[in-house]
Amino acid sequence: MNLRNEKHSRHWRATLHEIIYGTRTPAGRAFDVILLIVILYSIIIIMLESVEEYDTKYHTFFNISEWIVTILFTIEYIVRIICVKRPKGYILSFYGIIDFLSTIPKYLSFFIVGSQYFAAFRALRLLRVFRIFKLVRFLGESNNLIQAINASRAKIFVFVFSVLVISVILGTVMYLVEGPEHGFDSIPHSIYWTIVTLTTVGYGDITPQTSFGQFISAIIMIIGYGIIAVPTGIVTAEYTMAKGKLDEIDTGRTCESCGAEIHRSDADYCRKCGNKLPDA
Amino acid sequence: MNLRNEKHSRHWRATLHEIIYGTRTPAGRAFDVILLIVILYSIIIIMLESVEEYDTKYHTFFNISEWIVTILFTIEYIVRIICVKRPKGYILSFYGIIDFLSTIPKYLSFFIVGSQYFAAFRALRLLRVFRIFKLVRFLGESNNLIQAINASRAKIFVFVFSVLVISVILGTVMYLVEGPEHGFDSIPHSIYWTIVTLTTVGYGDITPQTSFGQFISAIIMIIGYGIIAVPTGIVTAEYTMAKGKLDEIDTGRTCESCGAEIHRSDADYCRKCGNKLPDA
Amino acid sequence: MNLRNEKHSRHWRATLHEIIYGTRTPAGRAFDVILLIVILYSIIIIMLESVEEYDTKYHTFFNISEWIVTILFTIEYIVRIICVKRPKGYILSFYGIIDFLSTIPKYLSFFIVGSQYFAAFRALRLLRVFRIFKLVRFLGESNNLIQAINASRAKIFVFVFSVLVISVILGTVMYLVEGPEHGFDSIPHSIYWTIVTLTTVGYGDITPQTSFGQFISAIIMIIGYGIIAVPTGIVTAEYTMAKGKLDEIDTGRTCESCGAEIHRSDADYCRKCGNKLPDA
Amino acid sequence: MNLRNEKHSRHWRATLHEIIYGTRTPAGRAFDVILLIVILYSIIIIMLESVEEYDTKYHTFFNISEWIVTILFTIEYIVRIICVKRPKGYILSFYGIIDFLSTIPKYLSFFIVGSQYFAAFRALRLLRVFRIFKLVRFLGESNNLIQAINASRAKIFVFVFSVLVISVILGTVMYLVEGPEHGFDSIPHSIYWTIVTLTTVGYGDITPQTSFGQFISAIIMIIGYGIIAVPTGIVTAEYTMAKGKLDEIDTGRTCESCGAEIHRSDADYCRKCGNKLPDA
Repeated sequence: MNLRNEKHSRHWRATLHEIIYGTRTPAGRAFDVILLIVILYSIIIIMLESVEEYDTKYHTFFNISEWIVTILFTIEYIVRIICVKRPKGYILSFYGIIDFLSTIPKYLSFFIVGSQYFAAFRALRLLRVFRIFKLVRFLGESNNLIQAINASRAKIFVFVFSVLVISVILGTVMYLVEGPEHGFDSIPHSIYWTIVTLTTVGYGDITPQTSFGQFISAIIMIIGYGIIAVPTGIVTAEYTMAKGKLDEIDTGRTCESCGAEIHRSDADYCRKCGNKLPDA
Repeated sequence: MNLRNEKHSRHWRATLHEIIYGTRTPAGRAFDVILLIVILYSIIIIMLESVEEYDTKYHTFFNISEWIVTILFTIEYIVRIICVKRPKGYILSFYGIIDFLSTIPKYLSFFIVGSQYFAAFRALRLLRVFRIFKLVRFLGESNNLIQAINASRAKIFVFVFSVLVISVILGTVMYLVEGPEHGFDSIPHSIYWTIVTLTTVGYGDITPQTSFGQFISAIIMIIGYGIIAVPTGIVTAEYTMAKGKLDEIDTGRTCESCGAEIHRSDADYCRKCGNKLPDA
Repeated sequence: MNLRNEKHSRHWRATLHEIIYGTRTPAGRAFDVILLIVILYSIIIIMLESVEEYDTKYHTFFNISEWIVTILFTIEYIVRIICVKRPKGYILSFYGIIDFLSTIPKYLSFFIVGSQYFAAFRALRLLRVFRIFKLVRFLGESNNLIQAINASRAKIFVFVFSVLVISVILGTVMYLVEGPEHGFDSIPHSIYWTIVTLTTVGYGDITPQTSFGQFISAIIMIIGYGIIAVPTGIVTAEYTMAKGKLDEIDTGRTCESCGAEIHRSDADYCRKCGNKLPDA
Repeated sequence: MNLRNEKHSRHWRATLHEIIYGTRTPAGRAFDVILLIVILYSIIIIMLESVEEYDTKYHTFFNISEWIVTILFTIEYIVRIICVKRPKGYILSFYGIIDFLSTIPKYLSFFIVGSQYFAAFRALRLLRVFRIFKLVRFLGESNNLIQAINASRAKIFVFVFSVLVISVILGTVMYLVEGPEHGFDSIPHSIYWTIVTLTTVGYGDITPQTSFGQFISAIIMIIGYGIIAVPTGIVTAEYTMAKGKLDEIDTGRTCESCGAEIHRSDADYCRKCGNKLPDA
């Protein structure tokens, strides 16, 4: 009878697992869509709350909305832990942490009282924006974009590092050429300006005033305009190559033990926890 | 005799169809060029009308011009419906709707009177700008660019979505760091600023004032500068692949029944309505 | 004797042709380098002349310099016509016209007197900036870049046209949304703003003030940020393909008759005038 | 005994060479990491020193820090010279010069006294920023990025040159169209503006005010937006090709004689000084 009970419990958990983590059954899809809507709703609420005009008018409504969302997220978080075989794997995973951080801020606002903590408290509340990461799960992971970027990660790092080295040197040169009287009041501030120019953002809050400064600026701009070719070249080359390999990737299966998604078509065991994967 | 009449009518409609939808006979080409000129003329009129200086001087001329263009477009629209075998197919097609929206605003200005509707009425008039879409037909569809972009549509969407997620998170962070006193007066406004920075537009209407804000800004800029590589990599890869396949596409033939253009060289029937296509 | 004279003249012209048009003899290379220096010198003079501070101080020096450069260019232009077999071919060629426009302005300043023509006269003088195009000859033509861009010319045109269509539509929408009170004072001005935003330039002289306007702006920016992938994809694909073909191109030979440069390695006759080419 | 001594000395120098130039032994890696930290520390000190607020507070601390760093760099520089077989090769190499320039400024501040040299002296001190180049050694050289950029150097130069030619011509045109009253007060200044626009930086410190000026600006923007495709296309094509060839490059070995890094896997002798390389 114990065995039967366990079997029943196992069946019950498997069904719940399919609904929450899976996307292949109608119930699983419905759950994902509802979750998506709730996440989007909560983000919109946070955004509108920050607009003083709306916050004055609808403060109570925003507050109640946030409590409802927080309770829904709490239930979801607990159920996610229950129906996974190895809860630790989920809790310490990227989405486990995000789910936790999405749920906690409103509760913290309950315990931490006092006007002096107000600013910090708002910051914690806003962490719930990270709920949006849940959205990425539905669209992002099933895509080979991330793999292509991963492949060129090392080269992109060298590129970004080189851009920073150039920025430090040119920022220092510009600090010496223009000086504090034209807005280049310190080397860090001057480096900020160089990055603004090199990435072709060009706010125009600080601009070179001397002829020589404008000459160097023009060089920085042309460098920035030219070297954008480098990351593009890398990603294009890697992406073209990744395309072939990624055809073998299977995005339909989810590990029942730790919730990891995306496995190779020929994989029999989860690449994260080593658990047996369901058949394709 | 009825049969002969129908045959005559059919011949008459086929000729008209060839002139209006086709681009292979001298008459068809002449029609297209004249239509092109009329569309361009009407757009220039709308533009100049919006400049107060010119509107005061040449108001009557602009008004008459618009009526002439509207009448020409009305005739064209009716003839298009008559000479197509299945008018419904044309009316509900993309260009059918655009053609209708290009024609209607001036008539609406006739029925809807009263100063209170003035603003809305102007908006409707300006919809005629969409006439310009007719131009795209001559240049755009015969080109394999659109197919290449279509192939990478899903990935571009994931990319744009990721950019939005990053913008929401970084916008919120910047709202907390800089705050309303430096122009970041709400999260939506702060997200707007993040998009301005991430896409390297950089208006400079809002700029970070604190050191930490400038540091985060620099990171946003470098992210924006780097991730442009992603859509470029996708489109380049897709375009290179699409080029081979698209050589088989035939752009010369137009379906006599629904007006659909662009078919595969080996196609015998319209991909939209299934009607027999003319011989290549 | 007549024959011998002609033979002598022919030999003399061939040598001069080699010096002026060729780049393979030491004399030819020396001529090119000197010409390059004179062109650069004349451009720098024009630039400095426009700076009021320098013009007040060194007006006479600038004036004499320009006369010397103009006389040198006149001699060069005449010699170029003399030593080419078919002068008409050279005069009507791209560089022939540029050479003429580089020489003429200073002479025109001599005939057209009167303070009222002063502004126009300056404009003519500045046309000499086009001398710089001569520089391109040394670096540009011998490069396969131009061929790659030529191959994708049609597609780039469709792209630019599409960008313009989008700009017209979105510019009109922004004119309606923001209106003259926020700087969008006419449709042409609003289209200018849209191009500033779409190309990610972002001056910030006009910025959206309403929430809805900022929302549309954000969309325009993301469109602009994304579609840059299109021309890049085209050029990359074309360039990769052009690279293979261009290896067969021979840049060393110049037509003795019309002065056309760059011919295929296996070409025996000039692709412009049909004259027999010198042996490789 | 002399031989034995020399052998001993040779062994001692080889070990030191391995520690300082090599990255394969634990001691070599530790040295590199410590050097990295010292370089970063010295750069941060220079940056903070330029912020007036911090310099007032911690002037003595900054001064002592700089002396310690300078002494460490001096020792390192001397040891580098000692343990290399051909010191001249190292001293005249790129990193040899950088190492020297990183060490010298603080000493110069000792000999050159007097408030009148203050500005120049600061400039010399700031040259130590070039120490950062040492960082590049660890990340940059072992990467095939630099080779890919080298391969397309000539084409990138032609591209940059063409951009400059376009900038000179369009800058002159804009100077004539807008004139000094709208901020285009000289041709060099106008060229600066054109580069700001063409590279899509767009500060907005100078903006066109006339309709015709805005029309030309829009054209410049679209040119700038389009031609970015050119360097990207070049680098992508070159990078894809370079990838194959670069697999044969071995980054692990360092020449014991001149300190040159990166050699082909099948190389037996240093590509710089011809000395026998250690076995792979």
